[in-house]
Amino acid sequence: MWNVGIIGATGYTGVTLISLLLTHPLVKITLITSNTYKGRKVSDIFPLLKGLFEETLVPTDEDHRGKCDVYFLCLPHGTSMETAKTLYNDKTVIIDLSADFRFEDLNIYEKAYVTHTAPELARQAVFGLPELYRDKIKGAKMIGNPGCYPTSAILALYPLLQEGLLTGDIFIDSKSGVSGAGRETKIGSLFCEVSEGFRAYNVGIHRHEPEIQKEVRKFQDLQIMFIPHLLPMNRGILSTAYSRLESPQTTGDILGLYKATYKNEPFVRIMDEGVYPDTRFTRFSNFCDIGLKAFEDGRIVIVSTIDNLIKGASGQAIQNMNVALGIDETLGLKIIPQYP
Amino acid sequence: MWNVGIIGATGYTGVTLISLLLTHPLVKITLITSNTYKGRKVSDIFPLLKGLFEETLVPTDEDHRGKCDVYFLCLPHGTSMETAKTLYNDKTVIIDLSADFRFEDLNIYEKAYVTHTAPELARQAVFGLPELYRDKIKGAKMIGNPGCYPTSAILALYPLLQEGLLTGDIFIDSKSGVSGAGRETKIGSLFCEVSEGFRAYNVGIHRHEPEIQKEVRKFQDLQIMFIPHLLPMNRGILSTAYSRLESPQTTGDILGLYKATYKNEPFVRIMDEGVYPDTRFTRFSNFCDIGLKAFEDGRIVIVSTIDNLIKGASGQAIQNMNVALGIDETLGLKIIPQYP
Amino acid sequence: MWNVGIIGATGYTGVTLISLLLTHPLVKITLITSNTYKGRKVSDIFPLLKGLFEETLVPTDEDHRGKCDVYFLCLPHGTSMETAKTLYNDKTVIIDLSADFRFEDLNIYEKAYVTHTAPELARQAVFGLPELYRDKIKGAKMIGNPGCYPTSAILALYPLLQEGLLTGDIFIDSKSGVSGAGRETKIGSLFCEVSEGFRAYNVGIHRHEPEIQKEVRKFQDLQIMFIPHLLPMNRGILSTAYSRLESPQTTGDILGLYKATYKNEPFVRIMDEGVYPDTRFTRFSNFCDIGLKAFEDGRIVIVSTIDNLIKGASGQAIQNMNVALGIDETLGLKIIPQYP
Amino acid sequence: MWNVGIIGATGYTGVTLISLLLTHPLVKITLITSNTYKGRKVSDIFPLLKGLFEETLVPTDEDHRGKCDVYFLCLPHGTSMETAKTLYNDKTVIIDLSADFRFEDLNIYEKAYVTHTAPELARQAVFGLPELYRDKIKGAKMIGNPGCYPTSAILALYPLLQEGLLTGDIFIDSKSGVSGAGRETKIGSLFCEVSEGFRAYNVGIHRHEPEIQKEVRKFQDLQIMFIPHLLPMNRGILSTAYSRLESPQTTGDILGLYKATYKNEPFVRIMDEGVYPDTRFTRFSNFCDIGLKAFEDGRIVIVSTIDNLIKGASGQAIQNMNVALGIDETLGLKIIPQYP
Repeated sequence: MWNVGIIGATGYTGVTLISLLLTHPLVKITLITSNTYKGRKVSDIFPLLKGLFEETLVPTDEDHRGKCDVYFLCLPHGTSMETAKTLYNDKTVIIDLSADFRFEDLNIYEKAYVTHTAPELARQAVFGLPELYRDKIKGAKMIGNPGCYPTSAILALYPLLQEGLLTGDIFIDSKSGVSGAGRETKIGSLFCEVSEGFRAYNVGIHRHEPEIQKEVRKFQDLQIMFIPHLLPMNRGILSTAYSRLESPQTTGDILGLYKATYKNEPFVRIMDEGVYPDTRFTRFSNFCDIGLKAFEDGRIVIVSTIDNLIKGASGQAIQNMNVALGIDETLGLKIIPQYP
Repeated sequence: MWNVGIIGATGYTGVTLISLLLTHPLVKITLITSNTYKGRKVSDIFPLLKGLFEETLVPTDEDHRGKCDVYFLCLPHGTSMETAKTLYNDKTVIIDLSADFRFEDLNIYEKAYVTHTAPELARQAVFGLPELYRDKIKGAKMIGNPGCYPTSAILALYPLLQEGLLTGDIFIDSKSGVSGAGRETKIGSLFCEVSEGFRAYNVGIHRHEPEIQKEVRKFQDLQIMFIPHLLPMNRGILSTAYSRLESPQTTGDILGLYKATYKNEPFVRIMDEGVYPDTRFTRFSNFCDIGLKAFEDGRIVIVSTIDNLIKGASGQAIQNMNVALGIDETLGLKIIPQYP
Repeated sequence: MWNVGIIGATGYTGVTLISLLLTHPLVKITLITSNTYKGRKVSDIFPLLKGLFEETLVPTDEDHRGKCDVYFLCLPHGTSMETAKTLYNDKTVIIDLSADFRFEDLNIYEKAYVTHTAPELARQAVFGLPELYRDKIKGAKMIGNPGCYPTSAILALYPLLQEGLLTGDIFIDSKSGVSGAGRETKIGSLFCEVSEGFRAYNVGIHRHEPEIQKEVRKFQDLQIMFIPHLLPMNRGILSTAYSRLESPQTTGDILGLYKATYKNEPFVRIMDEGVYPDTRFTRFSNFCDIGLKAFEDGRIVIVSTIDNLIKGASGQAIQNMNVALGIDETLGLKIIPQYP
Repeated sequence: MWNVGIIGATGYTGVTLISLLLTHPLVKITLITSNTYKGRKVSDIFPLLKGLFEETLVPTDEDHRGKCDVYFLCLPHGTSMETAKTLYNDKTVIIDLSADFRFEDLNIYEKAYVTHTAPELARQAVFGLPELYRDKIKGAKMIGNPGCYPTSAILALYPLLQEGLLTGDIFIDSKSGVSGAGRETKIGSLFCEVSEGFRAYNVGIHRHEPEIQKEVRKFQDLQIMFIPHLLPMNRGILSTAYSRLESPQTTGDILGLYKATYKNEPFVRIMDEGVYPDTRFTRFSNFCDIGLKAFEDGRIVIVSTIDNLIKGASGQAIQNMNVALGIDETLGLKIIPQYP
């Protein structure tokens, strides 16, 4: 039984970690923190937990080192690296859900975010996308959990990139539910500013673009454009990626490649020809669903969906923990979602 | 291990039964039927089940008797009683989610619905509300699963009724998400006819009124008025009940009564004073949450929430199955919901 | 041509006033203020106004007296009375959308809100519900625009109260879209905290209860209970009121009374028997729709809908202005709404 | 005063035509038809029209020739061309909202739709996109109103295409509200099948693709890919188009080109640099809003929004009528939308 701490437990990724970890047979949540709600029961903040998990929140700004075997950091970037420095040692697994430990090249990080104050820790961190880096994650002590958009985009492109099949531009048109913006109060996240509307945002300047770009460049030297949009719904990301194959292939052949690439992956589902994903079918699960169509002239469109809070954040973090600890990768993630 | 059949598996209650029963350690779904989708995999209709449950639908209109230990009937009223007659024997548990087996007095049923063609079976059926009738459900072979609105209303009123504390009118103002209308194509259930709108419907003529009324009358001879409204959301019912106490009591006292009444109930949660339920906190779970306020002059308002597809239908059906079979009542219902 | 100023123009009531007044043939918006957005074009804040109205916002905290013939105050209660004192003179019409000038009896106001600092002005203010107080509004200089919930509730009950037909309790179960909470950033108004959920709030302590109660008491000495609920949608209020007639009458008779009472009202529509309002049919218009059912035993249920930002706020404010100025009451309010 | 008939008045485009035309000072709606609702008042079907427009629907399947000066056909493709043949003469303006008269090359039409049974009429029809074909629309008797997606896509690309500035692929990622699917009952349009979900559909096979493609080819011989997605909201289309400029230019320069191209257009608004459209800002209006960003390496992304029922259907139809009749193009379209 591992003791687990959630640092910053009252945002959407924090409460999602709680819900999922309560189903995990080998861990126990022994620490939940919040500065805003310290001293209160988490089930008072999220009454859905009433009768299920009623622990009390302790301040984030305390010294929590050595208390847990695994820490999940659900903190803003910048803050997270400071906390990670404090908690880090060689017996503890730290999984950071901010952007602070996602970049091998800190120049890219610092251009998009802020000056990095824990560069050595960042350099030994592993980018926690199990489908690409499972071997490195095994036994890792410091894991940078990928961004939600990058998870959806990279999994959509990886089989093609790995084989070096793409050429020219890659345009990634992504759409996310509002929970991706977190639980902070801002005008743009108000119900009345989102409902019955749809918009692109951060066009050409979203910080997930360099994160996707650096992963793409590991396989092919291609330029991506990433445009995020805000969907009037709670959860889910759908990414539609447009590009060209160096030489045309059939949809069936490319689907075959995808099925082969992901055949041992417990959380990637490849659609049949003519079927495309809907966010409602990955909602509340750790799945990434992928469908695609290849055209006779080499153009290709790939559609992927994830739940931004599960495979795009807390679910993937648990998957990373399982891989790091060497236990069954699906523990805590055997969710049977409901419909509708 | 019990073999379970779901007759009519491609409506919302059917697919919810599948999702929940897949987490039940003592049952196996061995039969799923659909006339509309016969011959197709259920995961093609509901791709969220891909990789989780990929069985093939067989026609509803076949003879399924003797195949299963438990049958859930997710059929329209009228049809359901015919199917029940066919499947019934003393070794099988039948749980009917239609209205056909909810009424002890068939005159009431026939006034609201149609002529009953299985009156003997109806007379031996048990009204499957475990919080009120657990003892009768134990060992029962024919169970009429309560309606969604009645479940929310009766649980909200039961502690007061049982003690005979109410007087005068009872007004029940209920609001339901759209999944309560089922998965049939009708103008009134179209997205554009529901979204950004709210309305009362079936005012004074909804067939759940006699179902609530007959239960109320078992305890106190009081007249209810029940007005349903349609919420622009998928799941959840909130009922607000208004009445008067024969003699005024404090909110704290009445909450104490509720807590005492439901203290051994695994699926009823009583809110603290000043806290009231939100459908999002019972969404995807089998809980019924109840909050209330008593006024100095004897007036009282009680607010209850359920998930209409779980505690209001499929979850309660599984709870009934568990009670009938004499196994742990919470099996298949240990859901940790997610937020938001 | 009257010059009109909107003090606090960047909340939802402010921008609604702009949209409506742009269609008014006899007024010109010459002043729009905002402390938050001062110096910016209002069409930058609300780009739907681009090309339609591109004036610049000036600070609210400046001396605006004598600049306009009519002022609409869209300010928080407490602040509003201070501003009203400054702007008030006998040549100017002030219409206050806060609660500060709605109460003849300041004891009631102060119990629910704060100490009143402009009591003399409050005493000469008129409660701006034209259907009840049109004669007083004519020529008035200081008008307290009613709350959204009270508008929906009072219009629903007025014909019965006026005739003294009710007896016993009046329970008013109201449901409002989120725009009723304004454009302030608070957790409870975030998309993810509202969407796919429904809850009662301020149970027994909402400040619109004394506002409704004092109007009811002007006609019948009856006690109301008012319970508001939050709908997952932008706009609209539906109130369901439950009570009893002293002596039973038919639905047809009562509908006849309603049609007679409101027969000259341009903005009240009475439904036919068996038809009940939907908020989507009053959305974006100044209408109040009312349907009802009377039961044989004297019980009665009345359902009313309004758009909370139009008839519940800015539209009614314009109606009040028109009445006060003695011009056609429907100017600026001849909206043909669209569907869906 | 022109007499106007709406053939098929109870779908969403029909009721939108009614709402808009009621504000048009030079026309009178003298004919509304519906087979489904014949004999009923249109305000019974859409109660928002109560007190505003209460005419009775006559059967569509009657001979309506010679009754009106202008006919709007809101019928399914295939049916529409048959009706057009009947109504056509040289004194009447027919504006068809189906696809039947949008294609100069009937081979393209027949490949995507059905055999054309009115080919001569089709050949003299004008494609009703005023921003491109205003001169041809003037005096036209038979106008094919463009599809909603094509309107949003073509207006987004036209300034670049006209100047021949694009090269390589054009990927058009479009997202539409549910009203684009019409008011027919089908599973995929049910609230519970749309809400809290997002999906691509008709990938590579949507019939608006050839309509966009044939317009693009009039200017540049480039291949488009068009992928539509379904948004969980009522109204609005946002199209995000990705391509490359033959030679890189600044965002400012390209915006300048757009502003110049559309400078006399009453219904096209070009955003400032760094600002991108939101469907909620064109909702309920006839505007098309366009924002864009050009990258240093020649890549370009253009974002456009329309209301699919207004500029994408009924509003554009009225604009076409106004142009055809030679009257002020904005009559009936001077909508001041509300927020939120």
